[in-house]
Order: sequence, then structure tokens, then C-alpha cells
Amino acid sequence: MTPHTSFARLHHRPAPLLLPNAWDHASAAALAAQGFEAVGTTSLGVAAAAGLPDGAAATRDATVALARVLGKGGFLLTVDAEGGFSDDARDVATLARTLYEAGAAGINLEDGRADGTLAPAESHAEKIAAVKAAVPELFVNARTDTYWLDRDKTQTRARLAAYEEAGADGVFVPGLSDPERIAGLVAACATPLNILYAPTGPSLAVLGALGVRRVSLGSLLYRRALAAAVTTATAVRDGRPAEDLTAPPTYAEVQGLAGPHA
Amino acid sequence: MTPHTSFARLHHRPAPLLLPNAWDHASAAALAAQGFEAVGTTSLGVAAAAGLPDGAAATRDATVALARVLGKGGFLLTVDAEGGFSDDARDVATLARTLYEAGAAGINLEDGRADGTLAPAESHAEKIAAVKAAVPELFVNARTDTYWLDRDKTQTRARLAAYEEAGADGVFVPGLSDPERIAGLVAACATPLNILYAPTGPSLAVLGALGVRRVSLGSLLYRRALAAAVTTATAVRDGRPAEDLTAPPTYAEVQGLAGPHA
Repeated sequence: MTPHTSFARLHHRPAPLLLPNAWDHASAAALAAQGFEAVGTTSLGVAAAAGLPDGAAATRDATVALARVLGKGGFLLTVDAEGGFSDDARDVATLARTLYEAGAAGINLEDGRADGTLAPAESHAEKIAAVKAAVPELFVNARTDTYWLDRDKTQTRARLAAYEEAGADGVFVPGLSDPERIAGLVAACATPLNILYAPTGPSLAVLGALGVRRVSLGSLLYRRALAAAVTTATAVRDGRPAEDLTAPPTYAEVQGLAGPHA
Repeated sequence: MTPHTSFARLHHRPAPLLLPNAWDHASAAALAAQGFEAVGTTSLGVAAAAGLPDGAAATRDATVALARVLGKGGFLLTVDAEGGFSDDARDVATLARTLYEAGAAGINLEDGRADGTLAPAESHAEKIAAVKAAVPELFVNARTDTYWLDRDKTQTRARLAAYEEAGADGVFVPGLSDPERIAGLVAACATPLNILYAPTGPSLAVLGALGVRRVSLGSLLYRRALAAAVTTATAVRDGRPAEDLTAPPTYAEVQGLAGPHA
């Protein structure tokens, strides 16, 4: 199948698409300014920023609000929408249309549930089919959490096949970092495989050589951001040098990342 | 005058109050977890996160929304409310009451305007008086931007005196880092003096020795957070080690910073 959107085409280039995940306007704008053509959101970042639990459907409103802010940016946006915030495929299709209208080019839909179990493959496939029927132009990245939740790993291939059959444009297996298994999934999948980058796992180049087409940074950037803030604050408090961290952008530079002035 | 609130008392201890500034729930919770008893907000962070210009009244709603999230935290909250988002002192008093009801213990009100000029001292003093009349328990930190905007610096003492006369509980001169001038202001002021920390300026200990009672980190933490995110993303892309930055909190640790689970 020939990819028919700008975002889909990013999954079919010599090197994998490296997708950095933003949690607000400025983080997305700062990443786009570094040449990243596409930016994702991180559901953990959205939930933590709002003070809501991740993965538990409580963050639907915050997710839509963030998409409305980022959908106006000069980059391609894909939204981490957890499991679609509903067990009803029609609700998920409605959400997908809302995100598409906000400017999203893609959506992630996961089969992991907040209680640590996996949704039945059939019901996740139904959501994917409902979204593709409602918004064919939206790139659906179907995520299985067999590795992420360490549950029913032997079902991974069958789940991905069912999601591709339902119309997924790409598939995503976070938590998988074993090179041999990654290569096996690349060979088995009909659509581009997405892997979550881990600082202790294979490099982007190695993942590319294995045939991975998309590499996400997930919550890593948000977690690094929090660490930098806390480390700076405690360094000032405890009299340690605060200058030895990466030099931050200036006040004016961050202002420059803001939207058009009122 | 004896300080009559928990937050006011933090300005009258042997060491200055170091106030780290958060931009969302998780950054505030992570700072509180490090032992910071009080947390401020940063108007630059709020504006940049929402994609709105800073200092231009466009961020009133985002400021109130953030106060509603942070006001429920287990720490004392003070809100950076720019110039109160209005030239009408009654509007500013209404805003102050809204923030107090959201859980804020303090508010910053600045006389600098988005166009780079200073509001007349009289109109800023009117805002302060209106806020203190409406919400006496709210700690009003009156900020003059003479140094921040590099305008009419000779007016600094007169402006601070007018703001104290109007009822300010503390005064704030961001942009001032010269030790001699700081000591001069400490001697001239009737209320605790707040200085903005700068990595290139005096340390917390030096500021304390000069008599400064409160030191704010302003937008520094948010800017460091953005820098860490961007540096991590480009390191992964360019094949540089991404591990050599401060180790981020784990996914589970960030989840733990979220609100009560639904």
C-alpha cells in the first residue's frame, strides 16, 4: 500500500522516523525548531502535568486540549490517546475525529488497560476499524502492550496481525528491545514497526538496521525535563553549582516559542 | 508586623525562603517531594506551555487553571499573576480572591507591562490595596520591574515604598544582582525583599547574608527542563550518548507524582 499522507510517508524512508514526545506547546515548538518534522505527545506527561492518573481514561479532556494547542504548530502531530478513553469503538472513533480536526496526523491506540491487563484483541481491532472508517486519513499506530505489561507475550504477533487486518497503518510494541525478536516482528509485520527507545537498549542506528521504521521517545523527554528542574532547584538550595547542567534557553528564546502575540 | 500566615512566616527565618517555580502538577509535586515547603508558578512557563505570549494578560485563564491544580497540593503555593491581567484594580482583586479560593497562599503582582513600560506607581499601588482589602490573608509580593525592564531604576525605592504603603507583604526586584544595591534596598524596605536567582549572580548564601528574605528561581527550572528534553532528543537522533544527563525519574515515579487514582 502506498502511503498517502505526509505523516505516513515518514515511515518509509531509509532511516527510521525518530519521534520525540512533547507535553506542552513550548516543548513541541523547541523540538520542531531542532528539525523534528513530527512530534508526538506522551500520555504520561499529559497525565502528570494535569495531576491525573495515566492510562485510566481520566486524561481525555487534557489530551484533546493539548492536541488543539499542538495541532496548530508547524509540524506533524501524532497523539498518544491511550486506549481511546472508552471501551466503545464509536466513542473512540469520535475522539479520533476530534483529534484529526484539531490538526493531528496520527493517533496511538493501545490495548493495555489501567489495571495492567490487556483488552481482548477483537475489541481493540474493533476500535481500530471504527477509527479508520471514520477518519481514513488519520495514521493509526496500533500498540500492543504484551511486552510493556509483561503479559501474554506469545500473543504479540497474532495481536499485531489482527490490528493490521483491522486497518492499522503501523504497529507499536513498547518494552521490546531484544534485537532478534525485533527483527522477527519486522519480518512478520505488514506495516511499519514502532519501537520505544530505551537509553539502555539498541541505538537508533541499530534499530534502523533491524528494520524498525519508527522510534518513539515516549515519556523519556518529560522525565528528563523533570529531573533537570529538580536538580537545578536542589543545586541552588544546597550550594552546588547550577551552571554545570546544559545551558537553558534564555527567557527571550522561550518567549519566542510562544504563539503569535496577542 | 507579626506574620500571621504559614507562608508569611517562611519569610522570617534565619535563611532566605528559596522558592522554586513550577509549571505543572508534576513539576510542583517533584519539587515538594524534595522538601520545598512552598512552590511558585512561573508566568513564562505557563504562557509557553499554553502557547500564549507572556506578560500580555492572555494567560489569565491558564494561570487560574494551574492554581486550581496546584492549590490542592501538599505545599504552600504562590502564583505569578503578572500585572493581574487588568488595569482595573477591582478585576485584580477578583482574580486574587479566585486564586486564594483555589488554594494560593500568595500572589506576585508586577508593575512591568507587556510593552516594556512600567505602570504608574499609583495604579500599581491601587491594585495592591484592592487585593489586600479583598483577601487580607493572601501574601502580596509586590514586584517592580525597574531592573527587569531596565527602566527608571532611580524610582525603585520610591516604588517599593509606595507598594508597602499600599499593604504589600513583601517586595520583589527581579534583575537586580549587585550586592551593594541589594543591601541598600534591604535597609530601605519595611518588608522582606525578594531577589531573582541568576546562575551568574550571588549564591543563595550570599543573598541571605545581604538580608534577602526570599529568592525565586523564576523561569530557570522551566528553561532547564526544555533544554534537557531537547538535548536528549537530539542526542538520540545524532547518536550521542543520552545517558550522560541526569538520570530521569522512572515512569512509575512520575506516575506516583500524579493525583489520586481515579
